[in-house]
Amino acid sequence: MITQPTFLINETIARANIHAMAAKAAAHGLIFRPHFKTHQSVQVGEWFREASVTAITVSSVTMAKQFANAGWNDITLAFPMNLREAAAVAELAGQIRLNVLFDAPEQVTALTPLLKHEAGFFIKIDTGYHRAGVLPDDTNRIDSIIATAAISPLRFKGFLTHAGQTYHAKSREEILAIHRQIADILHNLKQQYLGAFRGIIASTGDTPSCSLAGDFTGIDEIRPGNFVFYDLMQLHLGSCSFRQIAAAVLCPVVSVYPSRNEALIYGGAVHLSKESQFSPDGSRIFGLAVPVDRLWHASGDAHQLWDPQQLFAHEPIWREPEGDDVVVSLSQEHGLMRTDSAWAKALKPGDLVTIIPVHSCLAADLLSIVDSL
Amino acid sequence: MITQPTFLINETIARANIHAMAAKAAAHGLIFRPHFKTHQSVQVGEWFREASVTAITVSSVTMAKQFANAGWNDITLAFPMNLREAAAVAELAGQIRLNVLFDAPEQVTALTPLLKHEAGFFIKIDTGYHRAGVLPDDTNRIDSIIATAAISPLRFKGFLTHAGQTYHAKSREEILAIHRQIADILHNLKQQYLGAFRGIIASTGDTPSCSLAGDFTGIDEIRPGNFVFYDLMQLHLGSCSFRQIAAAVLCPVVSVYPSRNEALIYGGAVHLSKESQFSPDGSRIFGLAVPVDRLWHASGDAHQLWDPQQLFAHEPIWREPEGDDVVVSLSQEHGLMRTDSAWAKALKPGDLVTIIPVHSCLAADLLSIVDSL
Repeated sequence: MITQPTFLINETIARANIHAMAAKAAAHGLIFRPHFKTHQSVQVGEWFREASVTAITVSSVTMAKQFANAGWNDITLAFPMNLREAAAVAELAGQIRLNVLFDAPEQVTALTPLLKHEAGFFIKIDTGYHRAGVLPDDTNRIDSIIATAAISPLRFKGFLTHAGQTYHAKSREEILAIHRQIADILHNLKQQYLGAFRGIIASTGDTPSCSLAGDFTGIDEIRPGNFVFYDLMQLHLGSCSFRQIAAAVLCPVVSVYPSRNEALIYGGAVHLSKESQFSPDGSRIFGLAVPVDRLWHASGDAHQLWDPQQLFAHEPIWREPEGDDVVVSLSQEHGLMRTDSAWAKALKPGDLVTIIPVHSCLAADLLSIVDSL
Repeated sequence: MITQPTFLINETIARANIHAMAAKAAAHGLIFRPHFKTHQSVQVGEWFREASVTAITVSSVTMAKQFANAGWNDITLAFPMNLREAAAVAELAGQIRLNVLFDAPEQVTALTPLLKHEAGFFIKIDTGYHRAGVLPDDTNRIDSIIATAAISPLRFKGFLTHAGQTYHAKSREEILAIHRQIADILHNLKQQYLGAFRGIIASTGDTPSCSLAGDFTGIDEIRPGNFVFYDLMQLHLGSCSFRQIAAAVLCPVVSVYPSRNEALIYGGAVHLSKESQFSPDGSRIFGLAVPVDRLWHASGDAHQLWDPQQLFAHEPIWREPEGDDVVVSLSQEHGLMRTDSAWAKALKPGDLVTIIPVHSCLAADLLSIVDSL
């Protein structure tokens, strides 16, 4: 029986998302190096392997070790190198084909004395998100990183960016304009350095751009991650349809308050994360509640084929939204949902609701799908 | 060596916070039943035991089991009873003195057939926070809960509330006004039912009220939790001084961007949570960066006496804030801090910064201090 907030994956949809993105990359002649930070799951990783994926992206040394131990031997660690983990990075380079990320010469200086095996490196370019990276016109800094790495087992692999600003875009057109702009920036940089460094590539890969773009001119590699599950944020951006969402959190209804059209669910900040987005009325919401599928619900929730802590399903698990049944607030363990549509108003204590999280990566991390597989 | 985001506790300050609140409860003749959801740590729990605490509060069945197994035998599970965990609750009632929370008769109906041992129950009252609970004038519902519990091993213990609306208060005066109001509501309810149920009590206990109030007339029990560590939210509310903050997250500096006065830290949403608060300029912030204490820093960070994953210190770990060095954005693993003051502008890759989290309960949960103790 489902007793606590439980992360659900519709395996059929997730595999379809993987195949669609792999096919898109192939059609455009792109290297497909999906980001595994979204699911952090060895089992979900196998679905990628079955779609002929051999190279992956991660965002921490911990994840790199986890997937190296699970047999992945071509990993880009797409987080500027943390000097304090240089020893662990150097060790990993002896185990797998590892690419690291630099945006400062100090990072190179810390790694090189420890490195006994070849490793690739990308220079992280700040193409407008202003989180990390070297500004594209700062060729002094780019040259300094390359020069610092010259006498070392480090091999320059190219330029990498994350256009996270697409998450703040107001329209599909704006996402595509950002995508075009960052492709040009990376391509121009590559052209400047291609003479000296043959084979370098341009790598990008936020899920909104990779989902929506039809033109990848100038780009050699994509690294999207979120698309395997998608979520409410991506739905809001237009990167996916509701039917492409492959993950949700099943939550028990604890109490109902018809006088204020709200229900209390067991599902709080420690399950869904406090990631929020704005609803059309300007308020912040923390998830969308949709009905558990009738067929599945009728069969009972103690489905013997499913791990109670970690559900993979091929049949539909949840239905389409029927109204404005959103999670309006989250405490540590409590969630409060608005009961707008008829099914939501009919909820009783002990029922289950499916919450589509705002950000599936954070919900997956919180519900530790990695540990249970 | 500190290589990753690490949750730090200044044990001296945490113990002082515990003693101060225990002394305040004693001075006002209150039962002190601290909430353990903040730390979720058996070891921190021992500091409470050494301050003569024998009764505690938790917010999940999982925590109740954890602390029951650690020898705590008087626990209030302050979350309206989740019907789907009724069997586990009934089992716990055979192991310890357990109090549960009801705000709907259905919850009682689900529990009673399974209950083989006595358990106490509180009726959760919605005193204005509008998250959970029965409205104070809804005596029909209160009577219905009591009547449903009549022929069962359940014993009515009183009325309980959480005045979470104090977290939205704009001033100390507003917090105190809310506290006064909810004390009156609970006291009046208690008076109505005291004739029929001798010994029932009124229980409240948000950290802002318990920290600031000097008058607890009408209240019998307090259940604050956050005060053990406090955090940026409490500092902002005026519930604590900076020197009373007992927990923080030590984060490596990965890169610095002097042109935009920002630094990239290894410390993201999966470490600090996306809990945010507004800064005076109206922007959202996710933490406050303060310098690692000079003496401690000079002695090196590979302190042999401390567990590298879980630090307890008696000496100062961090210094007072020196400027507007706030965390301005968080991704899954990345944090971006503003470098406003001189020490922050002097940060280099490989340095450490101390981040005071907005909400220490969520950071403690994310960094799983429970698992490492």
